[in-house]
Amino acid sequence: MLNREITPRKKDYAQWYLDIIKRAELAETSPVRGAMVIKPYGYAIWENIQKELDRRIKERGVQNAYFPLFIPKSFLSKEADHVKGFAKECAIVTHYRLRETKDGQGVEVDPEAKLEEELIVRPTSETIMYDAFSRWIESWRDLPLKINQWANIVRWERRTRPFLRTSEFLWQEGHTVHETHGEAMEEVLDAVEMYQRFAREILALETLTGKKSELEKFAGAVDTYGVEAMMQDGKSLQFGTSHDLGQNFAKVFNIQFTNRDGKLGYPWQTSWGVSTRMMGALVMSHSDDNGLIVPPKIAPIKVVIVPIYKDENKNEVLEYSRDVYGNLLEGVKSIEFDDREFVSPGYKFNEWEKKGVPVRIEIGPEDIQNKQVVVVRRDTLEKDKISISKVNAYVQNLLDEIQENLLSRSKQLLISNTYSVGNYKEFKESFLSRRGFIRACWCGSSECEEKIKEETKATTRCQTSEGLKHLGNCISCGKPGSEWVFGISY
Amino acid sequence: MLNREITPRKKDYAQWYLDIIKRAELAETSPVRGAMVIKPYGYAIWENIQKELDRRIKERGVQNAYFPLFIPKSFLSKEADHVKGFAKECAIVTHYRLRETKDGQGVEVDPEAKLEEELIVRPTSETIMYDAFSRWIESWRDLPLKINQWANIVRWERRTRPFLRTSEFLWQEGHTVHETHGEAMEEVLDAVEMYQRFAREILALETLTGKKSELEKFAGAVDTYGVEAMMQDGKSLQFGTSHDLGQNFAKVFNIQFTNRDGKLGYPWQTSWGVSTRMMGALVMSHSDDNGLIVPPKIAPIKVVIVPIYKDENKNEVLEYSRDVYGNLLEGVKSIEFDDREFVSPGYKFNEWEKKGVPVRIEIGPEDIQNKQVVVVRRDTLEKDKISISKVNAYVQNLLDEIQENLLSRSKQLLISNTYSVGNYKEFKESFLSRRGFIRACWCGSSECEEKIKEETKATTRCQTSEGLKHLGNCISCGKPGSEWVFGISY
Repeated sequence: MLNREITPRKKDYAQWYLDIIKRAELAETSPVRGAMVIKPYGYAIWENIQKELDRRIKERGVQNAYFPLFIPKSFLSKEADHVKGFAKECAIVTHYRLRETKDGQGVEVDPEAKLEEELIVRPTSETIMYDAFSRWIESWRDLPLKINQWANIVRWERRTRPFLRTSEFLWQEGHTVHETHGEAMEEVLDAVEMYQRFAREILALETLTGKKSELEKFAGAVDTYGVEAMMQDGKSLQFGTSHDLGQNFAKVFNIQFTNRDGKLGYPWQTSWGVSTRMMGALVMSHSDDNGLIVPPKIAPIKVVIVPIYKDENKNEVLEYSRDVYGNLLEGVKSIEFDDREFVSPGYKFNEWEKKGVPVRIEIGPEDIQNKQVVVVRRDTLEKDKISISKVNAYVQNLLDEIQENLLSRSKQLLISNTYSVGNYKEFKESFLSRRGFIRACWCGSSECEEKIKEETKATTRCQTSEGLKHLGNCISCGKPGSEWVFGISY
Repeated sequence: MLNREITPRKKDYAQWYLDIIKRAELAETSPVRGAMVIKPYGYAIWENIQKELDRRIKERGVQNAYFPLFIPKSFLSKEADHVKGFAKECAIVTHYRLRETKDGQGVEVDPEAKLEEELIVRPTSETIMYDAFSRWIESWRDLPLKINQWANIVRWERRTRPFLRTSEFLWQEGHTVHETHGEAMEEVLDAVEMYQRFAREILALETLTGKKSELEKFAGAVDTYGVEAMMQDGKSLQFGTSHDLGQNFAKVFNIQFTNRDGKLGYPWQTSWGVSTRMMGALVMSHSDDNGLIVPPKIAPIKVVIVPIYKDENKNEVLEYSRDVYGNLLEGVKSIEFDDREFVSPGYKFNEWEKKGVPVRIEIGPEDIQNKQVVVVRRDTLEKDKISISKVNAYVQNLLDEIQENLLSRSKQLLISNTYSVGNYKEFKESFLSRRGFIRACWCGSSECEEKIKEETKATTRCQTSEGLKHLGNCISCGKPGSEWVFGISY
């Protein structure tokens, strides 16, 4: 039962990724360019992610709300840098009515139903939200205002890949308003920490965090902080971002408040978000050539029980398996009892392996005799025979162990693919021979950054708090600088 | 502390509704025509609705998934009736890029970035989903397929009202595929029952259910079943619908399956949905001239504690109140302790009344002396002094009582505003003198239905299963018919 449907990573990593998405039934392409259908199994993982992250967001005193999908064109013109970074590639609604074609066989755009002002399908919601905030905020007593939105977003990307870059995606966007810049910065960093801890504790992903460069920051932000994850091919994936917006948007959307001294002023804003891109990070970090591997904490199915029987012992095996199922139910949620007919056990093993279910329990006639079950863990594919009296505790413990093992692998991946170099020659050699995070000193100028990018395809990923303290000469121009993390990004 | 900000119902019912939405901070209008901002308090109620309904949907074996926001124009041409009913008023994406204006001050549509085929922002997702279903379904073993989607929907409505009719709204749409028409019909009716029970058990809303007429049914359906609620002004609000789609869509999207006899055929489909419109039903059923009333089961804040103190007893009152708060926490979730400074108790009472919090607890120095608290229930505004030792059990019981009382009021509203008439003269007189549900016999022809609508503004709401058995002559043409429920609808 080999997974011939999945291209091995070493052969073609990009194809392997697409094969996993397809064979694990996470998503599929749609007739709409660059947009995908998120299939039930993929969506169930997303729901688990969403539920836990939503809880953590609310714990920080943030409230959910919902703002319009459409943004008036004029709103996007208001913040000059925001225009440059975002207004370009987006879906534009120009008409509001179809009419039947003359032959009555189809529909066409009714030219008379042209909008006076075109509407942009939100590529992000700063502008439409802050227009509302300007009405909601009057005094320091209204602050901090902390709002989050779960929504669909459209950006007309040229090259798309499921989850990683799609013309439509799902995300959460947090937007907060504060009395002081210090308080806003605390929020920016709190959000980064929340994402890093969520990645670590729930998705079993180790990440780097730090400030982004001028070129890589969000259009309209004073500073952007990023959470960067390492994929198995050594490339870097931007997992989430958090922006210090300063007073840039407050000024153009005229958000003003009376401060504690009775004076009118502009507040300080932040925004931060993660998206269905996280699903791509999940796949590319944990999976292997047999299929997806889902960390137990977000697995829609944590344990699957597969009975193995022939006609003569079918009833006996099914009854015994159902006992195990009932017994396990006490402690472990999300167990699947796969008693499908017409499908062989081997087919089932293969299917659940592809879908990355953390623990598989196999039960055959021999196991009944020995009062045991066979337990297979998805991360290592190790098999163990476990006495029936111990299976409950064993499985619960094993789920924790798998979660920990995936995180420790992710840590290892990050560490073993991070290199330090002292000069540009080493830097270029490193990127020619292998992918990974490279720690190197840089002066901070966009000129050097663009030159390095052009010559090596490497971009700055972020500057960690540690890197900030590590001074040295820029690998490109030799002027004084400090250490940044470079990488090839998704 | 009168609510001068809320127009009394008797004075102007429509304005009262808008005032409640505004003063309870449920939603506000946005710069995008007909689209609203759902504010945190309104969204928290929606989240509670969503959570409980999602649980009930999944209990019925339905899986969530996510499909593209955009639908290729050609898809909407495929099902002829669907085109006529839906394709008309919708948002159309024609371009995918903006460019800076020559003066660099704004953005404009880039005429070169015109889409080859226009995309329609989903007015409902039958077409885009069924295109996918045609790839997912091969054999009877893939059936039933039961998919649900939580999504935003856009319909370019001419006249809009918050929650009741907005150009963008949030909803869930269930879509199922079955081997037989019988099984599909069971699903259609199960969904209707689920909505009715949800309305009754969670939203405290009594409803009528039944089949819709040819004119009122969903475009593309064989039959539509509706859930109809009665508002306080005697008008009818369509709360949810469930459609028997027959094989109409299966044929045009070429969904085929091999049946148990090995033959290829078209399966039978259903779709069913409810939307943020439910929020409008909630407001208009339960609220009064003092503000919103939220049923305890979906209240974001079930109990609010308001301490009443002067400088000299502030600490004492706050300490005692916090004890009550801590004690109540054991049994009741979602309690707010309103210890805001700068705001008078009277202002607080008013605010929580407007927001419809089911139970308010007032605590002043006198209450400490008497070892009691004052409990005010929002539905009747009755006040009671409750001994501190009993407050926990009292409040828990009171929340149940309020939930029941709201439902019994809703039942009463429906019953007392339902009339039976025997002929057209009575029918017209009835609609001239009062709003309500009118039970009257009708032959079933669209001609009579349109004539009645034109002359009285009354439309058929639905035919209940009881009405089907009640035969009689059509009030319009006198031909044999059966009993239908007529009303003026929102």
